[in-house]
Amino acid sequence: MENKGSKLTKLLDLGEFGLIDHLTKDLKIKNKSSVKGVGDDAAVIEPDPGKQLLVTKDLLVEGIHFDITYMPLKHLGYKAAVVNFSDIAAMNGIPTQMVVGIAVSSKYSVEALEEVYSGLKKACEMYHVDFVGGDTTSSIAGLFISITVIGEVDKGKITYRRGASPNDLICVSGDLGAAYMGLLILEREKKAFSASPGIQPELSGYNYLLGRQLKPEPRMDIIKLLDDKKIVPSSMIDISDGLASELIHLCRSSGTGCRIDEEKIPIDQGTFDKANEFGIVPMVAALNGGEDYELLFTICQDNYEKIREIADVSIIGYMTKPDEGMNLVTHDNALIELKAQGWDALKKRELDI
Amino acid sequence: MENKGSKLTKLLDLGEFGLIDHLTKDLKIKNKSSVKGVGDDAAVIEPDPGKQLLVTKDLLVEGIHFDITYMPLKHLGYKAAVVNFSDIAAMNGIPTQMVVGIAVSSKYSVEALEEVYSGLKKACEMYHVDFVGGDTTSSIAGLFISITVIGEVDKGKITYRRGASPNDLICVSGDLGAAYMGLLILEREKKAFSASPGIQPELSGYNYLLGRQLKPEPRMDIIKLLDDKKIVPSSMIDISDGLASELIHLCRSSGTGCRIDEEKIPIDQGTFDKANEFGIVPMVAALNGGEDYELLFTICQDNYEKIREIADVSIIGYMTKPDEGMNLVTHDNALIELKAQGWDALKKRELDI
Repeated sequence: MENKGSKLTKLLDLGEFGLIDHLTKDLKIKNKSSVKGVGDDAAVIEPDPGKQLLVTKDLLVEGIHFDITYMPLKHLGYKAAVVNFSDIAAMNGIPTQMVVGIAVSSKYSVEALEEVYSGLKKACEMYHVDFVGGDTTSSIAGLFISITVIGEVDKGKITYRRGASPNDLICVSGDLGAAYMGLLILEREKKAFSASPGIQPELSGYNYLLGRQLKPEPRMDIIKLLDDKKIVPSSMIDISDGLASELIHLCRSSGTGCRIDEEKIPIDQGTFDKANEFGIVPMVAALNGGEDYELLFTICQDNYEKIREIADVSIIGYMTKPDEGMNLVTHDNALIELKAQGWDALKKRELDI
Repeated sequence: MENKGSKLTKLLDLGEFGLIDHLTKDLKIKNKSSVKGVGDDAAVIEPDPGKQLLVTKDLLVEGIHFDITYMPLKHLGYKAAVVNFSDIAAMNGIPTQMVVGIAVSSKYSVEALEEVYSGLKKACEMYHVDFVGGDTTSSIAGLFISITVIGEVDKGKITYRRGASPNDLICVSGDLGAAYMGLLILEREKKAFSASPGIQPELSGYNYLLGRQLKPEPRMDIIKLLDDKKIVPSSMIDISDGLASELIHLCRSSGTGCRIDEEKIPIDQGTFDKANEFGIVPMVAALNGGEDYELLFTICQDNYEKIREIADVSIIGYMTKPDEGMNLVTHDNALIELKAQGWDALKKRELDI
């Protein structure tokens, strides 16, 4: 009988330099600002005059940030890249370059690494980002992906977390809570599979929820629409930890309070149904679920008519003076104080073991 | 009896955001180009007009790139930063900003992380670099440090690996092989300690060799001297893997061969003596030892008189046409072909287990 495993290429067969060459040989530069990509001591970037550069970084750790038992490696590479593009979007910028460091244990084959790289490259292709540096090394155990993304923004358009004022409108793109539902479905099927390894996972019918978890998209389209309409948000953040946690960040950085309306928070029907099935209040999934990678931003009220023309943006409330606190108004007009219960990698890890 | 361990702060006590705040709260911005540091979705950089930006990245893995049984955590942080500064120097640039991602297992205390950060901060202070982004997360096992450093260079002065021509002089800063001797001393003492845990390590008298291994310095002073003398090297690389391996990189990138003189390769007397004690040919330590972080560069012959004025630079040979090969001329005039036997993390790892 043929041993399938024997066809895989061991990392040792290529060596460190051979491996990096192999994984990066087909990279092509797309942006004028990328002067030199992979292959020297550093990548070289020359931004256009009048632009500021944005730099963001993420370190993703197997067993903490992702679970390769249900995360296909290509999706993992894609997601690792786009969550950083989303951070650039959250500054009102456009991602332009990416450098990547990967550490893998020797149990990974060259083909497995190729899968991760193919996801990284796909993300760069989709969002017109140049992959300008790659470093691959070994680890004692597990897979680590470290990504740095560089972006550009016109000097006058940069959007920090700190710029909101009382009465600014609070806006959010897309819908919330779906990525968390996708995660719960995957975890349920993993448990079912562990109990009875023969069964097939039941994932059909959940394409939207699973896609939101496995293959999120950064809202570069919203950044473009805001620019087309000449709206510069007063503050902005992307939703990685959950709406409540991110809104608290904006309020604390800006020195404001806020009031959001339960009824205006966008929740997809599939998220709503699935949350109920799992016995979770859908609003709680939207407030605390995390990993939606939608944009949360504030605009001055003068932009009200213009923002209403963007179909995929909801106005969910407004900023207040700080002494009014940070609150959710329920459908029966009760005030509930917002609390950050977002996903906290360190705490999660410590509680799991 | 008091339990010393109980005084250490567990990572859980601070939580992820608290921990990052705690570790980064005293950071101050020094460079005009650093518009916004830690605390938003991305750092913001505005380079001076006429400058190009350099981006370099390293991922350091416990058990592969460092051994915390003999690498003090503060030195580890310092070294992790400066090896990236050295990559920027190798492009003829000056490092200006740094972003860091750290993953640690829960066995590490807050105080241990503070040590790593204090080394990172010390390096930034020494070399006038702004620490503009930090991300700390957990790992299943071990310590991972991912560093991205950004630097600046005048557009006309950038130095790639690819620019050398036949007859260019080959120059190297400082002396070679000492960092490898430092490593061998540390490994010997670790073995002695494992065999008899009571004994004190014998490290006295080796300050220079140990310092070269534990606390290397990037040669920013050489970059400044070259600039003062208006020398722009035709090609440059820093020596992380060993002289032979790096020289082969320059030759391959530039399409040249090379000839270097055994007698001109700078070796410190302490390195020489220690290599002999360990039964290693000192020249082999200099050619293949690695981690010296000296600069290897080529200059056109017109710069001969000017380069001789820089005390800490040795001219060790010259570039040739590619068909002449890459050779070392021994003291008795024999030609030995240069081979890359540098430190290869992947191979090392696979062979160790």
